[in-house]
Amino acid sequence: MRYELYYWPTIQGRGEFIRLALEEAGADYVDVAREHGRGMGVPAMMRLMEAATTRHPSFAPPFLRAGRIMIGQTANVLHFLGPRLGLVPKAEAQRLWAHQIQLTVADFIIEVHDVHHPVGASLYYEDQKPESLRRAPIFTRERAPQFLGYFERILRGNSSGKGFMIGRSAGYVDLSMFQIIAGMRYAFPNAMARLERKTPRLVELHDRITQRPNIAAYLASKRRIPFNRHGIFRHYPELDV
Amino acid sequence: MRYELYYWPTIQGRGEFIRLALEEAGADYVDVAREHGRGMGVPAMMRLMEAATTRHPSFAPPFLRAGRIMIGQTANVLHFLGPRLGLVPKAEAQRLWAHQIQLTVADFIIEVHDVHHPVGASLYYEDQKPESLRRAPIFTRERAPQFLGYFERILRGNSSGKGFMIGRSAGYVDLSMFQIIAGMRYAFPNAMARLERKTPRLVELHDRITQRPNIAAYLASKRRIPFNRHGIFRHYPELDV
Repeated sequence: MRYELYYWPTIQGRGEFIRLALEEAGADYVDVAREHGRGMGVPAMMRLMEAATTRHPSFAPPFLRAGRIMIGQTANVLHFLGPRLGLVPKAEAQRLWAHQIQLTVADFIIEVHDVHHPVGASLYYEDQKPESLRRAPIFTRERAPQFLGYFERILRGNSSGKGFMIGRSAGYVDLSMFQIIAGMRYAFPNAMARLERKTPRLVELHDRITQRPNIAAYLASKRRIPFNRHGIFRHYPELDV
Repeated sequence: MRYELYYWPTIQGRGEFIRLALEEAGADYVDVAREHGRGMGVPAMMRLMEAATTRHPSFAPPFLRAGRIMIGQTANVLHFLGPRLGLVPKAEAQRLWAHQIQLTVADFIIEVHDVHHPVGASLYYEDQKPESLRRAPIFTRERAPQFLGYFERILRGNSSGKGFMIGRSAGYVDLSMFQIIAGMRYAFPNAMARLERKTPRLVELHDRITQRPNIAAYLASKRRIPFNRHGIFRHYPELDV
């Protein structure tokens, strides 16, 4: 099965959670909007998303095409891919648990984004800076510790002793934890220096994920887009005092 | 199977999407935090959420207990309940499609909430009113039309001719559409008077849902908590000019 991933070509964003899963599994996939030529690129993605003939259109990227199936919403895509890529246990209760955590990641990601966009996604950060300056400390002092503390609690509660979020092996939720720690370190280095002391298991998990051969190769490749000021995790020093 | 729903007892909030599904299906359920007595009430909910022995804790309510399974995240609960209550088609592609729409409802609900809480959930609305006054028109003029237009497009694209979101019968996604229209009418009556002209199918769907016997009985009962200024949909006239 060759998977087609559709996402913005210049940011990690929400698509990165899917890219990490495909890369870890060594899946055959094409990152459509980053390719050139016939049927490729952003125009192809927009056409597919907006065409009246598209049966299951997405509200926004990312979305995935797998044969005749088209799926949107990041966590939903991972819920679909998980068993196919061997990145989640097969039992229903465990799959729902993984998905529940991933949906909480999705909630967290919205809050990360809204630190620099508290008024509206259609305005530049520079046009909502006073509001961002007010929101940022509430995020770094209240919300980020709540979310990271919740994920740390899950790691601590997994009695397998292997240091993964669910069961005894690395899954897509673990890859998402890596991405969250990496993103938070980029966007809020000062806040994270403090927060990491309270989430030692998450930090260890992040480090172990970077050493997995497929992930290490991916992170060293050009396929891994660097963090930048267009994505979800953005570094503005004034929001991280 | 007797389902136990855990959610705040004085608001519709996110729990309402689950209550509507349970009510439509005539399911045997207890709304734990709204009951009194041993093992009931908000303290019981908080204990279960925070106990170290809880294997699959939720970040926040709502969550559902079904025998030995405990599930959090509203859309995940509906994804689990859907086939059991006959409120979603059984084929995997259709279930994922329903879930994708429900996850877009979840995204919309966050934006509805953040109109009156753009800075932080820990502050009162009154303490973030200037920011809300700036966010509100962007929501009513840009985001709400985008989301409602997307849902209208899905209704229009369903060729069954029955006027439901998926297939030929009412499911949990249709109940969620009802709830969105009802909530938007309460919170933003002026904006909705304008928006409804562009979403005639959604309005029709809302009306038809209110006439379903189980839903009509529920809406007329005390189990339906009235909209108020503590929930997600809140009416502040200054945010709906």
